[in-house]
Amino acid sequence: MKVSGIITLTTDFGINDPYVGMMKGVILSINPSARVVDITHGVKAGAVFQGAGLVQEAFRYFPPGTVHVAVVDPGVGTDRRLIVVATDTHLFVGPDNGLFWPIIEKHDPVRVIQLSETRYFLPRLSTTFHGRDIFAPVAAHLTRGVEAEEMGPLVHDPVKLHLPLPRVRGQRLIGQVVRVDHFGNLITNIHRSDLDRFLKGLRPVIKVGELLVQDVRKTYAECEAGEALAMIGSSEYLEVAVNLGRASDRLGADTEDIIGMDVELNRS
Amino acid sequence: MKVSGIITLTTDFGINDPYVGMMKGVILSINPSARVVDITHGVKAGAVFQGAGLVQEAFRYFPPGTVHVAVVDPGVGTDRRLIVVATDTHLFVGPDNGLFWPIIEKHDPVRVIQLSETRYFLPRLSTTFHGRDIFAPVAAHLTRGVEAEEMGPLVHDPVKLHLPLPRVRGQRLIGQVVRVDHFGNLITNIHRSDLDRFLKGLRPVIKVGELLVQDVRKTYAECEAGEALAMIGSSEYLEVAVNLGRASDRLGADTEDIIGMDVELNRS
Amino acid sequence: MKVSGIITLTTDFGINDPYVGMMKGVILSINPSARVVDITHGVKAGAVFQGAGLVQEAFRYFPPGTVHVAVVDPGVGTDRRLIVVATDTHLFVGPDNGLFWPIIEKHDPVRVIQLSETRYFLPRLSTTFHGRDIFAPVAAHLTRGVEAEEMGPLVHDPVKLHLPLPRVRGQRLIGQVVRVDHFGNLITNIHRSDLDRFLKGLRPVIKVGELLVQDVRKTYAECEAGEALAMIGSSEYLEVAVNLGRASDRLGADTEDIIGMDVELNRS
Repeated sequence: MKVSGIITLTTDFGINDPYVGMMKGVILSINPSARVVDITHGVKAGAVFQGAGLVQEAFRYFPPGTVHVAVVDPGVGTDRRLIVVATDTHLFVGPDNGLFWPIIEKHDPVRVIQLSETRYFLPRLSTTFHGRDIFAPVAAHLTRGVEAEEMGPLVHDPVKLHLPLPRVRGQRLIGQVVRVDHFGNLITNIHRSDLDRFLKGLRPVIKVGELLVQDVRKTYAECEAGEALAMIGSSEYLEVAVNLGRASDRLGADTEDIIGMDVELNRS
Repeated sequence: MKVSGIITLTTDFGINDPYVGMMKGVILSINPSARVVDITHGVKAGAVFQGAGLVQEAFRYFPPGTVHVAVVDPGVGTDRRLIVVATDTHLFVGPDNGLFWPIIEKHDPVRVIQLSETRYFLPRLSTTFHGRDIFAPVAAHLTRGVEAEEMGPLVHDPVKLHLPLPRVRGQRLIGQVVRVDHFGNLITNIHRSDLDRFLKGLRPVIKVGELLVQDVRKTYAECEAGEALAMIGSSEYLEVAVNLGRASDRLGADTEDIIGMDVELNRS
Repeated sequence: MKVSGIITLTTDFGINDPYVGMMKGVILSINPSARVVDITHGVKAGAVFQGAGLVQEAFRYFPPGTVHVAVVDPGVGTDRRLIVVATDTHLFVGPDNGLFWPIIEKHDPVRVIQLSETRYFLPRLSTTFHGRDIFAPVAAHLTRGVEAEEMGPLVHDPVKLHLPLPRVRGQRLIGQVVRVDHFGNLITNIHRSDLDRFLKGLRPVIKVGELLVQDVRKTYAECEAGEALAMIGSSEYLEVAVNLGRASDRLGADTEDIIGMDVELNRS
């Protein structure tokens, strides 16, 4: 694969500790011309499913040959495997804990390689910071043209991630809120194609907790300020928002509790 | 204009979602050698006046030929125009909602161009994320030397922004708190030149809510720890601070409510 | 010194104001090919000891010839000196208030130079933002190959920082919590070598507030979910953590109050 020299980072490290900076230092020590882009360091601590969703959502906007490092790794230091996932066009580096399962599942061909060649790691390894000691240097070597296959043996049974999928129950489509974004929008796991298949041209009534909205709008501004509405969001999934307000504030629950809430659709 | 290859970003997107990362991916896909610098993603959601102030404050520290993207866009998806503003030395890309009015107002010559040439956009447009689908690719094309004028027709009536201006009322000068910074400093809209014109060499007594301070100091350390003081801040506007403390904490009000509070000056 | 062209930034500026962006603009105006990496902007306001620790922890992961700018500067605008610290391999730029004392103390040779040559500063200086007006341009000039020695006279008495050191009291080793990280881990000032010297092969009982843990583990996963444990962290210091939880939440105290708490070790 022709590499772009770009490395993205998606972690649950936050931005107040020196951890992310250290990873960038390691990368630049190995490949001074690498370019590092933060996707986010605000993944909820240990929330593998959330990190998996973000990587899956973001990677496609980067040039072919980009290396995507993701570290949401509650099992750091245990004997979980460390992997590179290589599709035709992108590379992914991180723990084998399901973080890259959405990528592996949807790509063919795809190769998964276990990181075992320690010459691509830092010489001294901690047990708690493989992001710095293993994933960052591996990513940097990949951007210098080392092939993923040189880094270890193939993995045939990568860890799967069981993401909730929307399901049809009688006349209802039931999905879940999978993310609450910075604007308080409730992002669901119902893809535009799920919606089209279910609605067959009819209009939906959508219910999340106390919030009840009709129809799928094109823009926030089709509703009054403060009114709740549903839309297809920028990543092609149904979301529930409030025009010039925060849908999450209407649910009388913490963000933590909102994630996982049912989204029910009926045809009207 | 000779371009610098640098793109700055000022948004209300926060940093926990993948939105900013996606914009950078789009930029690097079009111009792999572009350099992207975050001004801030912490503008209050939808606060156009705040975004306008930050862009106006920051742009001048960048090299000529820099492209400044700002996205504080509560009307995303409506028929508001999308524009490039070109001064002699800098380019600005974002919605035509007043965000660049301070730039337009203070520069001559200045051209405002409506983004209508869709060949500079991503091929597929969402209705809710023009930052990624339009502004990021337009900015990247500008850094590759596409002229702003090639992107659409001239706009002769850009949207104005009515920023509060300090006013003299009898013997008083009345301004407003327009920002509370990370240190709890109260930044006002009273410029050093307004102050000089009003004071004519006299000393001021300054009142913000319960806080009363005398004189304008040169440094925080002219006062005791914990004492309130007024200074000309680093962007040449009057600010009220507390030495080694937080002025905002003295007002018994939320940051939200502090912004917009009156600042009254009397001559003593 | 051969410079790497990389500049790191460690500040207490937060990320919602335009201050960090302005510093980057100044740097790129002077050296368009400089590369700027954020360590963190989340140092507690004015906490020199915390900034000092972060710089000391992070710098070693960057290539030789990197310039590290740190701005935690409660005395900005007073007559405190501004300095460059040059070891054999790295350069440090910031106020002479103890921020670089751990670097100065541990390196030999090391030179400390006072920034007095104003031709390396911005032409107009504010009294409150030397990060932008002095440290950023100085760092940029250093990455262009200006020698630290050209920037002013040598300093022979840099300001010292009295960091708490662990001490042995009878049969106990007493250290302190010096940082609470994003995961709620309690990072102490007890280095692996202090621990080895004290324990002489015995196993420790470790007490922080109400938390009592036995032994030093290799990984979080050696304990049950929710169980407290002690480990040598990724920077070689003893830390107290909770597997898949937050140790800081167990102490019934604010982060502010946890920093500085005693960590007591007994041999069992």
